[in-house]
Amino acid sequence: MGGPELEQLIGLFSRLPGLGPRSARRIVLKLLRDKEGGLARLADAMQAAAAAVRSCTVCGNLDSSDPCAICAEPLREARICVVEGVADLWALERAHVYRGRYHILGSTLSALAGRGPEDLAIAPLLARLEAAPVEEIILALPATVEGAATAHYLTERLKRFGIPLSRLAQGVPIGGALEVLDEGTLATALRARGAAN
Amino acid sequence: MGGPELEQLIGLFSRLPGLGPRSARRIVLKLLRDKEGGLARLADAMQAAAAAVRSCTVCGNLDSSDPCAICAEPLREARICVVEGVADLWALERAHVYRGRYHILGSTLSALAGRGPEDLAIAPLLARLEAAPVEEIILALPATVEGAATAHYLTERLKRFGIPLSRLAQGVPIGGALEVLDEGTLATALRARGAAN
Repeated sequence: MGGPELEQLIGLFSRLPGLGPRSARRIVLKLLRDKEGGLARLADAMQAAAAAVRSCTVCGNLDSSDPCAICAEPLREARICVVEGVADLWALERAHVYRGRYHILGSTLSALAGRGPEDLAIAPLLARLEAAPVEEIILALPATVEGAATAHYLTERLKRFGIPLSRLAQGVPIGGALEVLDEGTLATALRARGAAN
Repeated sequence: MGGPELEQLIGLFSRLPGLGPRSARRIVLKLLRDKEGGLARLADAMQAAAAAVRSCTVCGNLDSSDPCAICAEPLREARICVVEGVADLWALERAHVYRGRYHILGSTLSALAGRGPEDLAIAPLLARLEAAPVEEIILALPATVEGAATAHYLTERLKRFGIPLSRLAQGVPIGGALEVLDEGTLATALRARGAAN
């Protein structure tokens, strides 16, 4: 319908995360309604990003400068928060509570999926710690089996540096209703309960 | 975060229909994970579509050929289905029940929004009917106040051609549970009830 160019475009959009054929068609029709301001502008922005954005050689963050803006900030604290991906770094930055640096692993260990330590950016992390010691390493990994396995493995590998290691607290999310929480989170939150003052 | 190119790209994506900042970030990260196959390929497809796709000068459909593939199909019946937009034409084509031609109005009449008959592709429709008479005109307009006003106006304007005019049936959608239907639809479906055989 609409010729090969249109079908190709809708097909590519429908494979993006969270989109399907219906939403892809809606988006493409909206973009075509204003070819200059919609379609061409977005295509230009994509090509500009493809040309400019690269992985930071220090921490793995995506940025148009290398080292990335965060690594280049002189006032960041000498802490490293280890995350799985760039989306996690962005989420932590939006929370405005952490003023340290980051390290992006790129993935988590998974025996099932065949992802071993060599598939993660662990060697660059060790190299960073050799080059400049830090006050603390925070493991902000997903609260999944793979995340826990990765945290466990990193704890072993980082032991020799003698740097304080911490991990994010687990419990009831803020605004979370107990009745919709899974049993695992509830059990963790109950076991880790603190004084009510 | 991530430099101006990345921010610009996320901003443009987040303004697309159905997307917001969160889904835009997810999509952009996914595209950046594979620059060649993801970002560059989608940008190329967008530029190809921007260059190739245009409005059919006969019916207003979007296609890379003009007249569009539907207008160029010789075996289509001499009926015209009048729709508001290209998305409606696509939806009808997906239903595989209609083998006639289309005419896209581009909009509906709206006194509130200040859209009059001159804002709709009505003159081209009249010109088509002058040039080649058809057996039937089907008004497949939205079941809204604007859609009804547009259908009413078109009925008046098309009277002089003496062509049978029809409109889509209104009632309970297939698979629709009565308890979640609005009162207007239920009232219409009840008034238009037919024999149960």
